[in-house]
Amino acid sequence: MPTDNTRNTPTDKPRNTLANESEHLDRADQLAHVRERFVLDPATVYLDGNSLGALPHAVGERVARTVAHEWGELGIRSWTESGWWAAPERVGELIAPLVGADQGQVVVGDSTSVNVFKAVVGAIRIARQDSAARTELLVDEATFPTDGYIAESAARLTGCTLRQVPAAAVPGTAGPTTAAVLMNHVDYRTGELNDLPGITAAVREAGARSVWDLCHSAGALPVGLDAHGVDFAVGCTYKFLNGGPGSPAFLYLRRDLQDRFDSPLPGWHSHADPFAMAPAYEPASGATRGRVGTPEILSTVALEAALSVWEGVSIEAVRTKSLALSDHFLRCVRTYVPEASPHGAEASPHGAVSPHSAAGTPSRAGETAVSVRSLTPEEHARRGSQISLLCEPAERAGAVMEALTARGVIGDFRRPGVLRFGFTPLYTSFEDAEHAARVLGEVTGGPR
Amino acid sequence: MPTDNTRNTPTDKPRNTLANESEHLDRADQLAHVRERFVLDPATVYLDGNSLGALPHAVGERVARTVAHEWGELGIRSWTESGWWAAPERVGELIAPLVGADQGQVVVGDSTSVNVFKAVVGAIRIARQDSAARTELLVDEATFPTDGYIAESAARLTGCTLRQVPAAAVPGTAGPTTAAVLMNHVDYRTGELNDLPGITAAVREAGARSVWDLCHSAGALPVGLDAHGVDFAVGCTYKFLNGGPGSPAFLYLRRDLQDRFDSPLPGWHSHADPFAMAPAYEPASGATRGRVGTPEILSTVALEAALSVWEGVSIEAVRTKSLALSDHFLRCVRTYVPEASPHGAEASPHGAVSPHSAAGTPSRAGETAVSVRSLTPEEHARRGSQISLLCEPAERAGAVMEALTARGVIGDFRRPGVLRFGFTPLYTSFEDAEHAARVLGEVTGGPR
Repeated sequence: MPTDNTRNTPTDKPRNTLANESEHLDRADQLAHVRERFVLDPATVYLDGNSLGALPHAVGERVARTVAHEWGELGIRSWTESGWWAAPERVGELIAPLVGADQGQVVVGDSTSVNVFKAVVGAIRIARQDSAARTELLVDEATFPTDGYIAESAARLTGCTLRQVPAAAVPGTAGPTTAAVLMNHVDYRTGELNDLPGITAAVREAGARSVWDLCHSAGALPVGLDAHGVDFAVGCTYKFLNGGPGSPAFLYLRRDLQDRFDSPLPGWHSHADPFAMAPAYEPASGATRGRVGTPEILSTVALEAALSVWEGVSIEAVRTKSLALSDHFLRCVRTYVPEASPHGAEASPHGAVSPHSAAGTPSRAGETAVSVRSLTPEEHARRGSQISLLCEPAERAGAVMEALTARGVIGDFRRPGVLRFGFTPLYTSFEDAEHAARVLGEVTGGPR
Repeated sequence: MPTDNTRNTPTDKPRNTLANESEHLDRADQLAHVRERFVLDPATVYLDGNSLGALPHAVGERVARTVAHEWGELGIRSWTESGWWAAPERVGELIAPLVGADQGQVVVGDSTSVNVFKAVVGAIRIARQDSAARTELLVDEATFPTDGYIAESAARLTGCTLRQVPAAAVPGTAGPTTAAVLMNHVDYRTGELNDLPGITAAVREAGARSVWDLCHSAGALPVGLDAHGVDFAVGCTYKFLNGGPGSPAFLYLRRDLQDRFDSPLPGWHSHADPFAMAPAYEPASGATRGRVGTPEILSTVALEAALSVWEGVSIEAVRTKSLALSDHFLRCVRTYVPEASPHGAEASPHGAVSPHSAAGTPSRAGETAVSVRSLTPEEHARRGSQISLLCEPAERAGAVMEALTARGVIGDFRRPGVLRFGFTPLYTSFEDAEHAARVLGEVTGGPR
């Protein structure tokens, strides 16, 4: 696709202006000191916190202590003496304020997929108890795939039908036959923020139950679960909560629904008296009802230690910086990287790309230059904490991300042609954002 | 209950004989060197490997490297470069030979409870596909509770009925309406080993599907999953496999059933092409089909490191030593501890105990002496790798275990009155067994 290089060619002036501006923004950043709580490679700009958050300093020591002392020395006694048994609720309480939940409603454990299953089946059961006519499960059609797969299984096992609808269509679609609605708070491809308050209200108005997947919003922006009357929520903890690879997910069970939550995975850790070893299941009260089996303690204590970086940090301040960072990054991208025509691309973030649809322009290296355009909404109210750039030609996106990685700029790539850059205000600076955009300009063969 | 102290009063002769015998057995033990692979407190005899295995030396370094280097330095790249993505299958292959499974059939991840759910629903679906008349799920009535709770949920969600039967009655009960049978290989309370080959054959003969819970046998004795034609199996890895607190469970999917395995938890990690991010679910082939969501990597790599202790160790040698250890322990207990009358107790391992059923005899400390009797079968073919002693009076069992712990003998206690001692041949010596029995004699107020 021919690009209009004239409007993107920077002179030294915008380059210096952007670098100066970055310095200024970093000096004024009230969260700048939090960066010291993380292990960061000075040669790398890590913009993949939306996939795997950076390592907090507190984790290594904590995990080592759990292995050597709690397991190695205390052994089995650590289930009580080192607080292993109560870890899922205790760590849940650390996450609760970040997603706007009062105490006693969040528990960690299992993967996001398993928690989606618990929440969706639990939501359907409550809705059908209210009205047997509620036999439909709605899922937003841009959902992260695993939510859709698990929703399909939940629908099948509970005798419901599954229907995928665009997020914006949910309010007009939810009705007297809707049992539950499973929504992603942030679209993992485009970074678009869905309207949680509005959709939740519409679902409630329709008499159905809401389940929100917060994987790409927990730790990145205020969610307000209690304030907006969300029924169930799940989320992972290894993205903006920095819990480490595959750290346990969390489940939010709204307080006034807990006694009605009828788990499809009633393992012994959710029993009212697990050590009675009773043959009959009797569910625990509170968020404990969302537990299943024995929690993976090493991963759980790593998450607990990781959450210590939030000391003195408000999620509102994180949101303010997040928007400023992604604004800054977009500004820099527009200066440094050829911009693709919004009309020329045949690509869509959710569909396939014709490999011959974009010709590009030759770069200095003799390769076809790559142009990009942002898939992420400009409007703050519709933006999460990542910027997704669609490459043209799309089939070059993987190579672009490899080139970025080789130069120390870490983002990720999602087929068919999307480059994703996550902004974690706890450790990302404005200079990082500017640097990443500049390197992107270099590797795409754009003006430098 | 009055005890016949005369037959239990040791002279110096049996005491010396037992101590000498322990020394002799330890010198002849071909697995003695494996003990060095574990972190063990010399002041403690750890007989709770049936609940939480001891810490292998290899774990600390491996977990530290995963945190500092793989997460801290490589970050997201570790999903491929450090082999995180393939860890569930890779670690499964390390467990496979210990449970008699050829390659490509074992995958780790999730808790035992979650895996019981996958296996039972998967087994029911295959059975019902074979015959719609198969609508009953059998569970052994002495099951570990979580299996029963999860089985009930699986039955409810698939429209089956659940029936609890004694293990011995399964062959006579399984028939044309049986869909699946969920069995515990070893009874967690009594240590009794169920007849896996015989029951599996009977279930197959009835046209139903077998699901075995190997929590208390994997790593303790040969299981022979392939040889005996087991359909599905699950097990935890934190007992005799020493994987650490809450380390991920494993799932065995028999090769010729893998293509028919229809998971109730079809998360994206079980997709044929997870990074296609396709809206439609298409299951992977092989054991990968048993995966769900993102695996908890720190707990998974700890397990992988822990499994290195098996280098050069055969499960057959472990079984031989296990039986010798528990035989030796029982001999020592009979010498050192007052034996309860098998007829006098009103207690049953699965039921309540009348607190007034056993009077006991006064000990030196003025307390009521406690007598014990073994609930574990004498016959080798019916014994797992733990010895369960029923205390009389039963309500003293908790205090007895506390006194043992205070003296450095670690076992555990299960209501109403069972003391459990697990024997892990990889790190337990015959001297450990003798010492534990001697201390038990002291704290029960028996002859010393």
